[in-house]
Amino acid sequence: MTEFIPPGTRYVDLPSPFPMKRGGELRQARVAYETWGTLAADGGNAILIVTGLSPDAHAAASDSNPEPGWWEAMLGPGKPIDTDRWFVVCVNSLGSCKGSTGPASIDPASGRRYALGFPELSIEDGARAAVAVVDALGITRLACLIGNSMGGMTALALLTQRPGLARGHINISGAARALPFSIAIRSLQREAIRLDPNWNGGDYDEDSYPESGMRMARKLGVITYRSALEWDGRFGRVRLDSDRADDEPFGLEFEVESYLEAHARRFVRRFDPNCYLYLSRSMDWFDIAEYCSPRCGEHDADARSALAAIGRAGLEKALAIGVHTDILFPLQQQEEIAEGLRAGGCDARFLPLPSPQGHDAFLVDFERFGPAVAGFLDELHVPSPA
Amino acid sequence: MTEFIPPGTRYVDLPSPFPMKRGGELRQARVAYETWGTLAADGGNAILIVTGLSPDAHAAASDSNPEPGWWEAMLGPGKPIDTDRWFVVCVNSLGSCKGSTGPASIDPASGRRYALGFPELSIEDGARAAVAVVDALGITRLACLIGNSMGGMTALALLTQRPGLARGHINISGAARALPFSIAIRSLQREAIRLDPNWNGGDYDEDSYPESGMRMARKLGVITYRSALEWDGRFGRVRLDSDRADDEPFGLEFEVESYLEAHARRFVRRFDPNCYLYLSRSMDWFDIAEYCSPRCGEHDADARSALAAIGRAGLEKALAIGVHTDILFPLQQQEEIAEGLRAGGCDARFLPLPSPQGHDAFLVDFERFGPAVAGFLDELHVPSPA
Repeated sequence: MTEFIPPGTRYVDLPSPFPMKRGGELRQARVAYETWGTLAADGGNAILIVTGLSPDAHAAASDSNPEPGWWEAMLGPGKPIDTDRWFVVCVNSLGSCKGSTGPASIDPASGRRYALGFPELSIEDGARAAVAVVDALGITRLACLIGNSMGGMTALALLTQRPGLARGHINISGAARALPFSIAIRSLQREAIRLDPNWNGGDYDEDSYPESGMRMARKLGVITYRSALEWDGRFGRVRLDSDRADDEPFGLEFEVESYLEAHARRFVRRFDPNCYLYLSRSMDWFDIAEYCSPRCGEHDADARSALAAIGRAGLEKALAIGVHTDILFPLQQQEEIAEGLRAGGCDARFLPLPSPQGHDAFLVDFERFGPAVAGFLDELHVPSPA
Repeated sequence: MTEFIPPGTRYVDLPSPFPMKRGGELRQARVAYETWGTLAADGGNAILIVTGLSPDAHAAASDSNPEPGWWEAMLGPGKPIDTDRWFVVCVNSLGSCKGSTGPASIDPASGRRYALGFPELSIEDGARAAVAVVDALGITRLACLIGNSMGGMTALALLTQRPGLARGHINISGAARALPFSIAIRSLQREAIRLDPNWNGGDYDEDSYPESGMRMARKLGVITYRSALEWDGRFGRVRLDSDRADDEPFGLEFEVESYLEAHARRFVRRFDPNCYLYLSRSMDWFDIAEYCSPRCGEHDADARSALAAIGRAGLEKALAIGVHTDILFPLQQQEEIAEGLRAGGCDARFLPLPSPQGHDAFLVDFERFGPAVAGFLDELHVPSPA
């Protein structure tokens, strides 16, 4: 679905075959990315951003694509992630439909879309694909690895695979493992898509598209990405004007319903349903405790110990940022990350922010996230030799 | 759908016609109820319970129906609501399918089910129907009115309609008005039902039943009725045994998914989808601020003032109980109720409980809810003259 791919997107070919964690392999697969700024002669100013479920690689306007990106306020000259200073790379997740190879891509073996023939996708596969981009760009060590939401999981997976690849790490509204409340929400989103008759076991096209299932999934997403507190102030009990209200029985009546509907309509045709299913499930599967050695069998302790191993392996500084109102990746999960990394000797801080916007605060609350990220990067910055 | 009605259910006929708040009227409508204990000679020991969306009138085992009820641990001889002392009435909500007239009932004018021909249902209609039961039983004043969840709204509506009808009031996990987060959740539940092709504009039967829509709606309900905290301890990341896991692509894999599935399967055929839609929407519409006079136009102030009017009109003591982990009727809403009633001069307390079980804690956390309710009733108790 090429129309999802922003202009100016660049690609790195993955090794072929590219074996997948849970079995199977990809051939002729690639990862989409974009860059901003200039890599220093000593290669020491590189930042890699790994994203949440839905974003593409176009985090901000660039020479090749002047359209604003999904993190426009955070990234650019003089912005919190200052591209006059840093060379920034953002990758589109493996399994997505925005340039990187995923279930909506053509399987070279059959000449048809993979759909459910795509091998099972893990967060770890996305991490290895991101590492391939770093390697291809000739970066030997990242100054900072930034992961948001699902990208917070990808970042931790990457740091277990390539210990020491990053000097600094910012984990934003991320998690070291999926917990049952989030699994339940994501499972229900997937069920909504699967129940849509148009989904048809993953075999659909533009004319028979599982639109209502995607709309349900997205609405449930938006509900859990924001917070009750924010919506009280924003929507209250305001009703739609009579000309915007829905004549259908039980149709839209309140502003908040119309907001969800508008969000869902913008999303449904811009994201491939099978890719959504694969990426969503990869989050449920992720559990840093798998990388604890030796395993003690006690889950919390294993997770802590696996995080400590990352903190011991060359990661110098880390910052785990979370938001009080996040119900999907609750604050305790970012605290767990910071504590675990610190237990390994890394200078890791936990920063809880009082943003009212819930899980998605990092996409909107720049007053809080801007200084937090900029301050951390300032501490990391080492001027290049003239 | 007579199979939904517990044996031993009794009925009060509503005045015919019974006009509805938003227009239209019911004819030959009735309200289902059950009672426990004995009404004192002076009539002073009556308690009325108004329920959440789904319960029937069978709150506990009784002579006419020895099966355990939905609040079995709370209601009975020697229990927190002690039926050796109190005469307890529980009504099934108007609009439900468990005995009271609702969209699944036969419309006497047509001889067919009302379905979407049922007039628009408001919380206030349910309150007036509950008052009709109190009147029919010859109770002139309730010692206590207890409302849980949606019933907390019904109770407040009742107290605006019949000021002074209750001496005491316990509002459990209730709200004085619907807020946008809850509206959004309920709107999505209704959409899931409406999207099911079998719903068919409300015209379905047992053979073409909107089962998948109801299952989605119920799962989303259960997710929002409980809490992430409870589920972390209860399910963690435990997976299903291979013989219980689902072979379907993206099928059930984690315990928490199987728990939701089991809950949903138990519910879907036991509750009429149209009744669900009507009752769900009635909650979105409820707003105590409508009863403020004069209206100041500032929403919070109007709500407070309408609550104060209840607190001035003969309600002596009240207790608003809430739970820290409730995301659907958050704690601030019970605090608002207590503060509003107190502003009118009522001896109203707010009791936040640290239950991990979220909105549904009152149905399971009897260690906390039992003593809270029993203690309040003790203070209300005036021994009948011998």
